Amino acid sequence: MYESYWKEVDQKCSVTIPGFQSLSYFANIKNLCWFLEPKLEEEIKRLHNTVGNAIVEDRHIVVGTGSSQLILAAFYALSDPLNESGPVNIVSAVPFYSSYPEMSNYLQSTLFKWSGDARCFNKDGPYIEMVTSPNNPDGVIREPVVNRAKGMTVHDLAYYWPQYTAITSHADHDIMLFTVSKCTGHAGSRIGWALVRDEKVARKMVKFVEINTIGVSKEAQLRAANILEIISLSCQTDNKPHDLDNFFEHSHNLMVQRWNKLRDVVLNNGLFSVPKFPLQYCKFKRDFTETYPAFAWVKCKEGMDCEKLLRGQKILARSGRRFGSEPEYARISMLSRDEEFDLFVQRLSSIRGIGNEK
Amino acid sequence: MYESYWKEVDQKCSVTIPGFQSLSYFANIKNLCWFLEPKLEEEIKRLHNTVGNAIVEDRHIVVGTGSSQLILAAFYALSDPLNESGPVNIVSAVPFYSSYPEMSNYLQSTLFKWSGDARCFNKDGPYIEMVTSPNNPDGVIREPVVNRAKGMTVHDLAYYWPQYTAITSHADHDIMLFTVSKCTGHAGSRIGWALVRDEKVARKMVKFVEINTIGVSKEAQLRAANILEIISLSCQTDNKPHDLDNFFEHSHNLMVQRWNKLRDVVLNNGLFSVPKFPLQYCKFKRDFTETYPAFAWVKCKEGMDCEKLLRGQKILARSGRRFGSEPEYARISMLSRDEEFDLFVQRLSSIRGIGNEK
Repeated sequence: MYESYWKEVDQKCSVTIPGFQSLSYFANIKNLCWFLEPKLEEEIKRLHNTVGNAIVEDRHIVVGTGSSQLILAAFYALSDPLNESGPVNIVSAVPFYSSYPEMSNYLQSTLFKWSGDARCFNKDGPYIEMVTSPNNPDGVIREPVVNRAKGMTVHDLAYYWPQYTAITSHADHDIMLFTVSKCTGHAGSRIGWALVRDEKVARKMVKFVEINTIGVSKEAQLRAANILEIISLSCQTDNKPHDLDNFFEHSHNLMVQRWNKLRDVVLNNGLFSVPKFPLQYCKFKRDFTETYPAFAWVKCKEGMDCEKLLRGQKILARSGRRFGSEPEYARISMLSRDEEFDLFVQRLSSIRGIGNEK
Repeated sequence: MYESYWKEVDQKCSVTIPGFQSLSYFANIKNLCWFLEPKLEEEIKRLHNTVGNAIVEDRHIVVGTGSSQLILAAFYALSDPLNESGPVNIVSAVPFYSSYPEMSNYLQSTLFKWSGDARCFNKDGPYIEMVTSPNNPDGVIREPVVNRAKGMTVHDLAYYWPQYTAITSHADHDIMLFTVSKCTGHAGSRIGWALVRDEKVARKMVKFVEINTIGVSKEAQLRAANILEIISLSCQTDNKPHDLDNFFEHSHNLMVQRWNKLRDVVLNNGLFSVPKFPLQYCKFKRDFTETYPAFAWVKCKEGMDCEKLLRGQKILARSGRRFGSEPEYARISMLSRDEEFDLFVQRLSSIRGIGNEK
């Protein structure tokens, strides 16, 4: 979806890396996160300050190979001091990001383990709650649900950007995760970052990335810094490079168009529903807006297998079961290329035909 | 050490990545390793064929965020089917790469655990032996030492390149790990690769990288492909770009000069010794050569703490203890920048002064 924007600004956002640059493991040995490129740190802070979606003052920035690596780093950093009485429980409210269970359990660590739906969590002892807001898969704005002593939260704010939802306040949590994948569309770069309040936790997250991959690709960091810079520049009202569309306005308009197309099909259709979102005031846009999530969380009629039904029409979707939910639900990406998205909408409306024939 | 070479070939090895390129997680969905850039795959094969240091035919190539990630991926891939009776033992002969113990144990996995010196390994049950050849820290050419049923080996061949040692044959093992860090000097890129015989093992390694970081930075892969291409070109005798020094000859000469300087100091010195290496015929250079390791494995006189002694002269070294060895030993990098290396040699000879005064 983002490709067209980046093609238009082509010349300005190419990055050239000479052969002798960034040979070393180190980026800044004086920084707690010694492999973080100073330019990337600067542009991360600038973008958050421009958008107003997270507090960066007095926070430690830890860069990761995508936010996946930082989720694992947070599990490691938070669980190590807590797991005296067995693995720390990792929970998230249903429907949760489908990778959390596998990420928690794949190495069969005795530090932490997946414990399912946060709303059903009734064990004693320490836990980590993953709070994804707006939520993947359903776009809902979330708060922690467990709220007990010995609890830690990790806020995955990958989708807390103005193209997807209203920026209502500077987020201010202990660990906040972001990624260029969802902010700018550059999923292939594998660059994520964590804003961390506690120095000890930040140090342990850095330690994790050090043992896991000895830092994060310098090329990817330099390019991400460049891309974030362009986005910040595009948001300026004064001194803005004259031919640069505001990135978030541009992307928000695309999201609105896509969701309108989807809602049109769903409206004329007896088989599906998609979530509705309240209007909220966005401090960045200075206007009211709904949430336009990166995924459509589609619900079929009771008793139907939504993924199967969609697959029958060659629509790639992930079953609600993968998110701890019912098979009536399925998740579909709203960020595909234009032609793919149009094909998806077209195929979805042809299912409506099938439904009406019955 | 490699910086000067890459500065000289500057124009030819810059890589420019336009803003719209490599947005996706995917590089080639038809490939077993779906996040491997086709151009990198091609250049990896070409370089191995040029150098003759590893068999690439009928091997699966898995790219990783440095070879660290691939070591962990190999632990995961090999141990999962084997660990019915508890964690699989990971062993390596002393002196071993100092990160193996921490990499094995940091997540307290029940799939695998560190079990120390391969030469002392006497447990029943499955094991994984790490065979680093030439070895880090001591430069010795190695073979597996356990050789029992239920055993798996991982060959870490990071230093099996012509600047460091004689290329005596195409390596031909089940899992072989390489990294641009040690081959080209681009440690900051975090690009490693595994040549894997068994498809199932390769698939599980890919699965590990997928869960761990959802692939590997595309920018780093594209740049690594470019750098490997330049190296292959520099090795051509016919049609070679006329002003391109053979990379391995250039680097080998630097290694020889540095080792000669070091051996001179050691020779006039009653306190230290460094390993000696046999002459071997190198099929790449078509000449006899010794091994010139990336690290000096320095030994002090009995009963002295080598790291401490060196630290007293502001020489940064890693104690032999970290490698499962004695405190009489310490490891010093031979790949530092020219000015740092000269300072190291100068400081080392000043210790000789101190030693003679006693």
